[in-house]
Amino acid sequence: MSDSPQSPDFVLLVDCPDRPGLVHAITGVLFRAGANVTSNHEFVDAETQRFFMRTGCGGALDAPAVSAEIEALLPAGSLVQVRRVVPRRIVVLVSKEHHCLADLLVRNAYGELGSELLAVVSNHENLRPLADKFSVPFHSVPQEGLTREEHEQRLQELVGPMNPDYLVLAKYMRILSPGFVARWPHRIVNIHHSFLPAFVGAKPYHQAFHRGVKVIGATAHFVSDQLDEGPIIMQQVIPMDHSYTPRDLARAGRDIERTVLSNTLKLLNEDRVFLCANRTIIFD
Amino acid sequence: MSDSPQSPDFVLLVDCPDRPGLVHAITGVLFRAGANVTSNHEFVDAETQRFFMRTGCGGALDAPAVSAEIEALLPAGSLVQVRRVVPRRIVVLVSKEHHCLADLLVRNAYGELGSELLAVVSNHENLRPLADKFSVPFHSVPQEGLTREEHEQRLQELVGPMNPDYLVLAKYMRILSPGFVARWPHRIVNIHHSFLPAFVGAKPYHQAFHRGVKVIGATAHFVSDQLDEGPIIMQQVIPMDHSYTPRDLARAGRDIERTVLSNTLKLLNEDRVFLCANRTIIFD
Amino acid sequence: MSDSPQSPDFVLLVDCPDRPGLVHAITGVLFRAGANVTSNHEFVDAETQRFFMRTGCGGALDAPAVSAEIEALLPAGSLVQVRRVVPRRIVVLVSKEHHCLADLLVRNAYGELGSELLAVVSNHENLRPLADKFSVPFHSVPQEGLTREEHEQRLQELVGPMNPDYLVLAKYMRILSPGFVARWPHRIVNIHHSFLPAFVGAKPYHQAFHRGVKVIGATAHFVSDQLDEGPIIMQQVIPMDHSYTPRDLARAGRDIERTVLSNTLKLLNEDRVFLCANRTIIFD
Amino acid sequence: MSDSPQSPDFVLLVDCPDRPGLVHAITGVLFRAGANVTSNHEFVDAETQRFFMRTGCGGALDAPAVSAEIEALLPAGSLVQVRRVVPRRIVVLVSKEHHCLADLLVRNAYGELGSELLAVVSNHENLRPLADKFSVPFHSVPQEGLTREEHEQRLQELVGPMNPDYLVLAKYMRILSPGFVARWPHRIVNIHHSFLPAFVGAKPYHQAFHRGVKVIGATAHFVSDQLDEGPIIMQQVIPMDHSYTPRDLARAGRDIERTVLSNTLKLLNEDRVFLCANRTIIFD
Repeated sequence: MSDSPQSPDFVLLVDCPDRPGLVHAITGVLFRAGANVTSNHEFVDAETQRFFMRTGCGGALDAPAVSAEIEALLPAGSLVQVRRVVPRRIVVLVSKEHHCLADLLVRNAYGELGSELLAVVSNHENLRPLADKFSVPFHSVPQEGLTREEHEQRLQELVGPMNPDYLVLAKYMRILSPGFVARWPHRIVNIHHSFLPAFVGAKPYHQAFHRGVKVIGATAHFVSDQLDEGPIIMQQVIPMDHSYTPRDLARAGRDIERTVLSNTLKLLNEDRVFLCANRTIIFD
Repeated sequence: MSDSPQSPDFVLLVDCPDRPGLVHAITGVLFRAGANVTSNHEFVDAETQRFFMRTGCGGALDAPAVSAEIEALLPAGSLVQVRRVVPRRIVVLVSKEHHCLADLLVRNAYGELGSELLAVVSNHENLRPLADKFSVPFHSVPQEGLTREEHEQRLQELVGPMNPDYLVLAKYMRILSPGFVARWPHRIVNIHHSFLPAFVGAKPYHQAFHRGVKVIGATAHFVSDQLDEGPIIMQQVIPMDHSYTPRDLARAGRDIERTVLSNTLKLLNEDRVFLCANRTIIFD
Repeated sequence: MSDSPQSPDFVLLVDCPDRPGLVHAITGVLFRAGANVTSNHEFVDAETQRFFMRTGCGGALDAPAVSAEIEALLPAGSLVQVRRVVPRRIVVLVSKEHHCLADLLVRNAYGELGSELLAVVSNHENLRPLADKFSVPFHSVPQEGLTREEHEQRLQELVGPMNPDYLVLAKYMRILSPGFVARWPHRIVNIHHSFLPAFVGAKPYHQAFHRGVKVIGATAHFVSDQLDEGPIIMQQVIPMDHSYTPRDLARAGRDIERTVLSNTLKLLNEDRVFLCANRTIIFD
Repeated sequence: MSDSPQSPDFVLLVDCPDRPGLVHAITGVLFRAGANVTSNHEFVDAETQRFFMRTGCGGALDAPAVSAEIEALLPAGSLVQVRRVVPRRIVVLVSKEHHCLADLLVRNAYGELGSELLAVVSNHENLRPLADKFSVPFHSVPQEGLTREEHEQRLQELVGPMNPDYLVLAKYMRILSPGFVARWPHRIVNIHHSFLPAFVGAKPYHQAFHRGVKVIGATAHFVSDQLDEGPIIMQQVIPMDHSYTPRDLARAGRDIERTVLSNTLKLLNEDRVFLCANRTIIFD
């Protein structure tokens, strides 16, 4: 879970077709560049035969040069990034529920979020006082009287210029259109209140109650153009029993929703999440 | 989880419409009958407004008389049982996988199963030596050359006369027809290798791999005429990561499958499971 | 977990020597008083042979009369309470860590705490702005230049007149003297950052790191005059691996500390916690 | 959890002082030797500044040559192994409890153990029929009339010539003397029925009951000359409540004991466990 004792200054991220000698070749570039490797993870996905690598480095590094040198070693279709580790810029979208937002605001206030929280955007007004308490900009984009396209257009006009790395749906209860999602490929993260793929869609706690499950969960995933079908990043579950009403399930679920969401942001901030088909590779 | 320090000699089971004074009235009958109550659970389901009660009693008891007296107090549509606590009679159905069966056989051999294991029945031959090791009768009913109906007819002819309380599907990989299921209402228990309702049907571990879930599970449920839709009795999950192949998922899943199945049999043996709509009430 | 769909108006709490007929006798009093029983739990502790009962009732009730009538039925040494369900009054004691306090403040602000949060008291100043954000009174009682006895005397003078039901130690990092604890018998609740009895005392995450455990936990318990030895109310654990530094352990632990603490307050507010020797009986 | 789709033919294991360029240098040797790397894990322990690496390779390899070449690159005090992946040879020591042994025997019978199970050794006779069922050699070494030293001498004379890699204490209830342990440094694995360091020593379930914990656990660890103080390999826990007697705790605990033990053997068979101070590094 850690690049401890201190975080790396740079991370190298590689996603390329597998072939012999990759680790040796890539670490050779890093060695010659004087990089001080503090952590290293590799994985070859058996199904796609792609190689994934994340290397944390301390100290100074000529990132563009290292990146170019590594890219030159690899076949076409390889993705290479050497990134200075700076907090990821996020905009948080919410509707009316406060628990995930409050958690992010508190972590942000105490320097534990890891992300740079640019703004909170909502289709409602009720969470404005909460954001205000923590001096985080709050923007409401009401949907009344607007078509979905018009509403999303206003959202886009608002958040686009903020230039976030990720849009974080922290209980944003409107479905985003494929058109909107396409503008933010793998850059929208959602917390869904079930252990997907169980209970896709609306009111998962009511669904869970009527199905009589003995376990409920929360899932953080990238948003794709298929509802609740995007790559899963993190899931957590808790046991249930027959005495839980849907309201009790929702209450119990809120604790894991916020935990899953903030841990997911930590993974994204530290560049530990790779995409592979509709799955994720997590180097933690 | 216990009627400890010793198990009760009798259990009273009540499932009836709720109304004031039920606990007082029912415990009055028990008190006058000289029953020594060792444990007591009640629950009112808010949705159906039904009252459920399980009371463990030590000592001697005129079970039919107590049962009749309680029944006389309750409205029509009430279910009352006063049962001497004796092991439930089970027949275990398997296909080719050994892990759940082996677990049941070992527990049975050491007096820890709680059930009376009448026989093992399979549509294959390969597990016969395992049952033989533990001197439990093994019957194979091959399906080759038979229609589903013919095969199930032979199964029924074999297991019917054994007079089991429950048929336990311990990785029995054929789907039972609604006609067969109807003969054993809420008396067939299945262990399914996913956290239902995720991954209904065949090859759940392959489905789980391709969906990229971070948690897998096992579910024990009563079999209904809808595939994998019957009331859930128990579920357990374990965390996963991207490095698990479907084969690894299956391996990890086997440990929870057998644990969930044997714990479910314990609940059934101790009459801790009530049905309520398509849900279960579990008094543990 | 619930008296749902609505909470009870009254709860009856009984803790007495076991003997036959208790449930019948007690529920008879409730029935004749016209109480509408909405939930009922009983347990007999095998070791102490004491009987514990919690009954939730809706509607109006002459609480003192019912209590007296039940008490008259029971032997000496019985504890009977019939309490109108109103939020428990709490004072929260903190030192410098914000995460548990922030969680309580957010829940309080949104009506989800269940307790009546009277004030926050600290031996430091740094959390004052956090309490201020949520308009909860904050009092600091610095310890500099004071003996333990003097400091505790000031604490007592501050919190005594507030008349709280419980003092909640939400990462209060000073050990309270037996004299202070004796003034609040079973009315001080602490969140300890380990799965007690492992890692008693200071710096449990450092202890956990050096012992190389693969699981860490948090424990909510009543404070007794033996350090970290009081009755345990709730525990939760999370898996660890070798890559976690003490700082990572602390970070991961914070999420379960606050969850365990707020769930413990829920249990206390709903009068679900009974004491039995140095153990707790939890009716959830 | 996997070197899948197929297991590696060789593993390289390195434990040495950290310094820049290690991964590049070591993978260079492998590359030049034509090794087909199928998995790779590295970790630097911040406290000891030691570097750990496990690399799985497919295909043919001149193991001694590769090992020598890598060793030549590294400073004194480095440990290098290039091992053909063959099952680890184990002798299982038991006393009277059957559940862990039965689990190992079943897995062994179906080719799922991973280890080569040489023999079962006990200080009692009662488990002989169980071992016999699965045609595994069983030896009893009764302790009656013998001093601890004499008994351990007979054990040593029995198991020494079998030349096992590990002695596996699968509920062996005698404490081994430091002298015996010193003969098998980090080669004795024990399953302890608590989440160590809680409840060291005898009767942990009784200790757990009296302490009133809400979670119990099992711990697999290497045996050192300090009772229950050796490096922890794996731990698992399950929730408890007040209704569990010590007997119930023991029953519930058996399921996790056997799971933890068999998963630990899998880690050892695959050479995924490194020692670091009194901790373990687990590459899974």
